[in-house]
This record gives sequence, C-alpha cells and structure tokens, in this order.
Amino acid sequence: MAKSDVKLLGVWASPYVNRVQIALNVKSVDYEFVEERFLPKSELLLSFNPVHKKVPVFFYGDKTICESLVIAQYIDEEWTNGPSILPSDPCDRAVARFWAAYLDEKLFPAVRELLLAQEEEAKAVLIEKIVEGLALLEAAFVECSKGKAYFGGDSIGYLDIAFGSLLGWLKVVEIMADVKLLNEAKIPGLAEWAVRFSLNDVVKDVLPEPEKLIEYFKIFQARVEAAAKS
Amino acid sequence: MAKSDVKLLGVWASPYVNRVQIALNVKSVDYEFVEERFLPKSELLLSFNPVHKKVPVFFYGDKTICESLVIAQYIDEEWTNGPSILPSDPCDRAVARFWAAYLDEKLFPAVRELLLAQEEEAKAVLIEKIVEGLALLEAAFVECSKGKAYFGGDSIGYLDIAFGSLLGWLKVVEIMADVKLLNEAKIPGLAEWAVRFSLNDVVKDVLPEPEKLIEYFKIFQARVEAAAKS
Repeated sequence: MAKSDVKLLGVWASPYVNRVQIALNVKSVDYEFVEERFLPKSELLLSFNPVHKKVPVFFYGDKTICESLVIAQYIDEEWTNGPSILPSDPCDRAVARFWAAYLDEKLFPAVRELLLAQEEEAKAVLIEKIVEGLALLEAAFVECSKGKAYFGGDSIGYLDIAFGSLLGWLKVVEIMADVKLLNEAKIPGLAEWAVRFSLNDVVKDVLPEPEKLIEYFKIFQARVEAAAKS
Repeated sequence: MAKSDVKLLGVWASPYVNRVQIALNVKSVDYEFVEERFLPKSELLLSFNPVHKKVPVFFYGDKTICESLVIAQYIDEEWTNGPSILPSDPCDRAVARFWAAYLDEKLFPAVRELLLAQEEEAKAVLIEKIVEGLALLEAAFVECSKGKAYFGGDSIGYLDIAFGSLLGWLKVVEIMADVKLLNEAKIPGLAEWAVRFSLNDVVKDVLPEPEKLIEYFKIFQARVEAAAKS
C-alpha cells in the first residue's frame, strides 16, 4: 500500500483517532498522519467532514470516510488480507457492535463530562456511572474473550480497539479525580486486559502517555476558554 | 425457518422495532412478534436487555441481540441467502453506516424532542434542525442511490430501513406541528423516495399510520405522566 494513498486527519490525543491508528496497525497498512490543529478547525476538516466537523477523517485514494467505528469496519472490509478486526461469527459480531455502540453512547461521554465537570457532586455521579459501565464491560469481556487474551480472542479485535483507545484517558481520570477505575479486585479481567492491550505491538506507539494527555487537556481547556471569550 | 425460532420483542409504534420487522421481511424470515407492554417494563425486556432496557430485542434460537442497527446487520449476516441489506462495496457500506449513525445521533432524537417540546421557541429550533438534517439526507440520497429508486440502489437496503422507519413519525410531526417536512420542492429525491418506500411490499404492513401513532402518543404521554405522579 503506497503511503500517500492512505491518509488520516486526526489529533494524537483523540481516542477516536487512536482507534483508526490501531486498526491500520492491525492490518499493517502504512499511512500518512495529518495533525489537525487546535481551533479554528482546518479547511480540510470542515470540507471533508461538514456534518460533524470532527476527527478522525480517513482518506483512501479518492474516498473519504468519517466516524471512528465506521472507519474501523471499513478498514477491516477493504484490507481483507490482514488479520480480521470483526469476529467471523455473525452473533459475535453483533455482540461486539452492541458494546462498541454502548461505549460511544455512554462510557466515552461520561469520561468526557467528568473531565469537564466542576462540581464535586456531578463528578461523584459520573464516577459512579463509569464504575457501573466498567462492571458491565467486565462481564462483556468474560463473554467475548471466552478465556482468551482479548475481547477478539487470541488477537486484538473490534471491541478491543473501540474500548482500548480510551485507556489513556481513563488513567487521566484516575489521576485527576484521584480514583481507581481499573480496579484489579473488582474487574480483574479488564485490569489484566488493559495492561496486555497497552503493551501490544499494534498499540504501544499509538496510545498516549497519561502525563502527555494531562498537559494536552490543560492547553486545550485554556484555548477553548480563550476562544469563548474572544 | 421455523417461526418459533425467531422472536421479536417490540412495540408496534417504535421506529426502531419497525427497522427489524422490515429487515426480516427483506430476508423473508418468518417470526413471532411479542408486544412489549406499556409501563412497567416486562420481565422479559429487563432480563434480556438489562443495559438499555429498550425494545427491540431479537431472539434467534438461544441467541439474543439488542439495538436496532446491530440487529439489522446481524440479520443480513445470518440470513445470507436473501437479498443483501448492506451494500456489497466496502466504501458504500461505510457511507450507509455513517448516515445510519447520523440518524440515531441527530435526526431521531430531534424528532422525539420535538414531540415532547412544550415551548414554541424550542419547537422552532428543533424544526430547523430537522429541516437541515433532511437537506443533508437529500444529498446523501443522491450520492447513495446513484439515480436508482432507493438508498440501497434497486432495492431496499440498510439506509432505507434505518431512515424509512421514521416516516410515520415524521408525518406525525407534520400534523402536530403543522409544518411540511418532506417538501417536494426542497427535497424532491427524498419526497419521492418516501412514497416509494412506504408502498413497498416489505414495508407497507409494518409502517404504522400517522393517525394511529398520534393516538398511541397521547396514551403514552398520559401513562408516563400518571406513572411520574404515582
């Protein structure tokens, strides 16, 4: 695959962008990463994702695909010769898609809201919500992994990518809110999976360090506040 | 397919449930429809969709699948001998999935909010949002249908099902808010498609009449209010 044919417009700190990077690594697809700037949004972003105006935007030749889970499925279906990302069994695929949708509807927004929350009471409610979500995902891990290393079985699959991309930000929340989320006693399967996932070759150079994310978050907040005032 | 093997727990008035019914009709799969009651939610619903506690819930043998778009894809992948629901080309599939996600994130919630809105100002904002969404979908129709009858080409596909299931409720909004949404002058492709879709054999006995939906909506509202007071 010629590198210039495959381009990813993204932000290194975005878990949604990290999903696409990991999916491309699973398939050993070489790509050019184009870093989207802080505000104002680039012309490239606005013209190729006018509906949501959000990264990631994925380019392959003359094709453009948006939305991280849609892109991950597209990569799986376009590069069929690499390892599979989605499970092969229709029911297993449905279960993986169900939980990936749950992440985007519930868990990711709760983590984002918690990072932006000011009131202690609101923070406590959100932490409770995240803890409940992680307990559900622990059960999903037991169901999907069937005793193997990953949600996808022996290797990293769709749900590993969908959830694992959040691990850096979960650690940020642990540090900033001083709370243990990936608790080995309560969710042992997920806690071990998280370590295994983060060290995997297709992941380790993609997932940002929590310290870098905290630094990014502070700059991001300051710029958003400045933009709101101007 | 033995009818007893395939069961759908749903509510006849739910566009999410209607999606599954249409997908099953596309595949000519016979099924048993189990009507979920008004509040309180049934034990069946609570035990088989404990995460969202929402219909539709789809049963096939010992398998249970939730979330309408996940179920529609599952049906396509499980019953491979019928007409395809998802397009065959990976990029076309991605485009269909992108717009289906847009419907669930933006258009469906806007229609729901509009039905429940009390203030005239809030209603006007939501109508504007829906009109903008329909303009985007008109462009998507031109892109996906490539001059053919449906988003899916010559026959009803994933995006037809995802969007078409809302048509009854769009008409309800047109009646209750006294506004023309499927405007032949502004969105001619969608306006014609909507008529064609509603009359299609796999759809016509599924999509409820707007009058019946209005009646349902009034009873639903009254029961929700009574439940909140009790």
